[in-house]
Amino acid sequence: MELTDFRTAIDRYKVLFFDAFGVLKTYNALIPGIEKTFGYLRETGKEFYILTNDASRSPEQLAESYHRLGLYDIGPDSIVSSGMLAREYLQYKVENGTVAYLGTRNSAHYLETAGLKALSIADLDPENMDDIRALVFMDDEGFDWNTDLNKTLNLIRRRTIPVIVANTDKTYPMGMKTVAIAIGAVAKMIEDIVGKQFMRFGKPDAQMFIFAYQHIQNNPGVSRSDILMVGDTLHTDILGGNKFGLDTALVLTGNTRLEEVDMRIRSTGIIPTYICESAVVK
Amino acid sequence: MELTDFRTAIDRYKVLFFDAFGVLKTYNALIPGIEKTFGYLRETGKEFYILTNDASRSPEQLAESYHRLGLYDIGPDSIVSSGMLAREYLQYKVENGTVAYLGTRNSAHYLETAGLKALSIADLDPENMDDIRALVFMDDEGFDWNTDLNKTLNLIRRRTIPVIVANTDKTYPMGMKTVAIAIGAVAKMIEDIVGKQFMRFGKPDAQMFIFAYQHIQNNPGVSRSDILMVGDTLHTDILGGNKFGLDTALVLTGNTRLEEVDMRIRSTGIIPTYICESAVVK
Amino acid sequence: MELTDFRTAIDRYKVLFFDAFGVLKTYNALIPGIEKTFGYLRETGKEFYILTNDASRSPEQLAESYHRLGLYDIGPDSIVSSGMLAREYLQYKVENGTVAYLGTRNSAHYLETAGLKALSIADLDPENMDDIRALVFMDDEGFDWNTDLNKTLNLIRRRTIPVIVANTDKTYPMGMKTVAIAIGAVAKMIEDIVGKQFMRFGKPDAQMFIFAYQHIQNNPGVSRSDILMVGDTLHTDILGGNKFGLDTALVLTGNTRLEEVDMRIRSTGIIPTYICESAVVK
Amino acid sequence: MELTDFRTAIDRYKVLFFDAFGVLKTYNALIPGIEKTFGYLRETGKEFYILTNDASRSPEQLAESYHRLGLYDIGPDSIVSSGMLAREYLQYKVENGTVAYLGTRNSAHYLETAGLKALSIADLDPENMDDIRALVFMDDEGFDWNTDLNKTLNLIRRRTIPVIVANTDKTYPMGMKTVAIAIGAVAKMIEDIVGKQFMRFGKPDAQMFIFAYQHIQNNPGVSRSDILMVGDTLHTDILGGNKFGLDTALVLTGNTRLEEVDMRIRSTGIIPTYICESAVVK
Repeated sequence: MELTDFRTAIDRYKVLFFDAFGVLKTYNALIPGIEKTFGYLRETGKEFYILTNDASRSPEQLAESYHRLGLYDIGPDSIVSSGMLAREYLQYKVENGTVAYLGTRNSAHYLETAGLKALSIADLDPENMDDIRALVFMDDEGFDWNTDLNKTLNLIRRRTIPVIVANTDKTYPMGMKTVAIAIGAVAKMIEDIVGKQFMRFGKPDAQMFIFAYQHIQNNPGVSRSDILMVGDTLHTDILGGNKFGLDTALVLTGNTRLEEVDMRIRSTGIIPTYICESAVVK
Repeated sequence: MELTDFRTAIDRYKVLFFDAFGVLKTYNALIPGIEKTFGYLRETGKEFYILTNDASRSPEQLAESYHRLGLYDIGPDSIVSSGMLAREYLQYKVENGTVAYLGTRNSAHYLETAGLKALSIADLDPENMDDIRALVFMDDEGFDWNTDLNKTLNLIRRRTIPVIVANTDKTYPMGMKTVAIAIGAVAKMIEDIVGKQFMRFGKPDAQMFIFAYQHIQNNPGVSRSDILMVGDTLHTDILGGNKFGLDTALVLTGNTRLEEVDMRIRSTGIIPTYICESAVVK
Repeated sequence: MELTDFRTAIDRYKVLFFDAFGVLKTYNALIPGIEKTFGYLRETGKEFYILTNDASRSPEQLAESYHRLGLYDIGPDSIVSSGMLAREYLQYKVENGTVAYLGTRNSAHYLETAGLKALSIADLDPENMDDIRALVFMDDEGFDWNTDLNKTLNLIRRRTIPVIVANTDKTYPMGMKTVAIAIGAVAKMIEDIVGKQFMRFGKPDAQMFIFAYQHIQNNPGVSRSDILMVGDTLHTDILGGNKFGLDTALVLTGNTRLEEVDMRIRSTGIIPTYICESAVVK
Repeated sequence: MELTDFRTAIDRYKVLFFDAFGVLKTYNALIPGIEKTFGYLRETGKEFYILTNDASRSPEQLAESYHRLGLYDIGPDSIVSSGMLAREYLQYKVENGTVAYLGTRNSAHYLETAGLKALSIADLDPENMDDIRALVFMDDEGFDWNTDLNKTLNLIRRRTIPVIVANTDKTYPMGMKTVAIAIGAVAKMIEDIVGKQFMRFGKPDAQMFIFAYQHIQNNPGVSRSDILMVGDTLHTDILGGNKFGLDTALVLTGNTRLEEVDMRIRSTGIIPTYICESAVVK
């Protein structure tokens, strides 16, 4: 393994795709120095997008969360969230009616802007499930797991409706050494129990990358070889970027640590184009 | 598929192994007429055991639960629960110290009678996990899923300790058309997240059957061909019985319904020796 | 379940995506009457594409195979094969050097047109693997399974290179009641053994649908709601079409039979927009 | 991790269970010095058994294979093979008729001594499958994978019969750096394709350990805490031994290497009682 300087790596590309958690920020702070990277991108006129497996909040709220931390370069238009993919699916395939969801009140944004009535699983009456048109796993917060996961299970057993998972992650970081179960793992448990096939949206799936690719407007001549995907996780960021035909940079500020990076690449067979200490331009 | 009269089936055997849920009882009632079966077993001098994936209560408490419903033939000595296998493991392999558990206060019985200090996951201090010697998934009740499953996940990530699953079922019936998530499914979710290998106890595993087999004392001449396993679930009761070399009877009062039994046998490849409407001797 | 007349279904759409096996043809014959469908498409000016999990032959050879059976409407430009996606990946990510492959001599087409040197696994010298840049599972024919699968396994264990699966199907039909193991199942076995992550191309993955979507040139105003995906398999054609936001028609001339269609939809949770007896316009 | 001297470890036990491959021998040689261990066992009167996932040959032939290499202490009575468990199952549950098998001519021993007619898959006529009573995966040699695995798949699809896997290993070592696909991995591929449930015999399953446990005759007072399981593989030898309540010793002459042992134990959560350089008494 050889480390590449991050600036050297990005100088070869016109557009950057960034993962959020573990690359730009931790649970409640920015990666120290990351604002210098966005200054450099501004100077050099490089376009960028944030590709994030997150359906807990709207792009506007996600952008604000960076502003609150002191990073003002990221606007809603730069954010591609897995919640947006779920919304697109619902617009094409469900169209109208009531959709039940697991998640925070904020996560309902993606359902309501699709023109649907959003009903929190916490408010679902088990005796009155007949007009539910779809079920969406959005976020791990906003409901009581003991009672509402059983309600979810029985809804899926009784009704043949589309089930959508808007964040495929298994865990997310809470602190330096603590993680929390993400809604993707909960959805997988229910899927295993019922034996049905849910529809998943988020990295490493190609749709996430295509969605961002189609948003590249300022650079009409951009091809896939002009884009670098920057992430901290082999199984989502790097695998997805590779499969979509992009070059990829693995950074070591999140899920993958320096001392294990060689072993992880060898054992998974997922090979980034570059390995960089962090996404900070020094 | 041909239905066999239950009495005709059992007349060929000296010993009966029964599953509990869906065979002898539903969530809060006996299968109507099941007391006649136990009268017949008494008359004909056939021995029987209840093999149940259940670690929520001690054999004494499980026996009492039948007495409360009006069935007095089942004593603690007739019950082989998956909790007993977990206890046996702990006696051989953990010996002393504190064991954390997910489950009701009653489920701690299996840990305490193994000479161990039982600490509910609800009472575990995340900052003070160093003296935990093992973790046991006992039952789905007795803790807060939102907070305590994350605590469980972080305990397993930080400490290299044995993790035991004392009930491998994915769901259990709550009412005629309602099921609840069992602790086996929750344990599987955590196991998938951490990528470690937990130790599972319960049907269809051979240990459950061996445990019962070794309890057959009154009938020294009993061989496996003298035993009939009676259950309502192909993947646990029938598969486990078959694999242990027993004849098996599938009854249609629980997880497997008459209209689907042919299709289920064909699609799973799990083949019972007999199919009977119920375990009731008429 | 209600059957929809195929003509009624397609009259609502401008563009049709067809699966090949089980929809247009069986192993060595056309679905009787299917040429009438293509006559109708010609008359009504509807555009169509064949989306097929097949990397055994080039689009030209695939088109010829329809011509030999008497169907002349399908040209190479109408065919989107999973082999084309694998080729695209290789063009972006491997660029030059030698690529080992499992498959027929014809399947090497996709590698050679990507500017790569193709080396059949049958010709690979186990003592001389150092310059292999990638490995591709193309097709189940063209090599000796006993010896060459072991060679494949050891190549993947020793070298950290991208492994590509250009056909994700598990089986393909040989005759009315006989199936054969497809290369997707073989690749899955090797992937399970080594614990690495291969890159899969083919339905139900979004990339297949995007590839076809981008080929729609004659109809600049076509949106996803103008397209109908027609297939015989819930897990690939219908799931993939649904997830991409297309309406879907399940036909009963292949993997899914009339008597089981209700049960299959209910048990998988994969719901087509229409169910049609066949893709034949009467 | 701390290494324990092998003699120190075994001095605490009355009975030893040994894995074969990677502990006593490699593909075609003994582990250097292993004969000293058996001399020591003889002197000290310790009993031992070889527990091996192997159905390619009879216990007599397996014992002879040690004799040919110069180790004369191992007789047929000391060998517990997974083939013996499969035979026991067949004796109880199939009784008579023809059983198809995948494996060498020698592996048919386990079927024929169960009183059954053994028919190699290579000799099975696909048009004449009606009197096959069961199918057994014995060994990876003795048949043509290209043709006979498809025959196997179609047999299982057409007939609802028990399918037995008499060796659950995924690979076996061929040389210092080369492995071969074992029949367990092939069986898993077919099982995944058909979606049926096969019956597996071999470590880490409890039945293997019980079988050996019941053979301990010379030491009537032996309990589980008097037995040490010695193996080179965490997922079979150590997991199975632990779960059965035995103490376990991991040796580093086979599947687990010194430099990775800590990481493997931490990442799998499978914890041996001792780690020893080898099973050689110095």
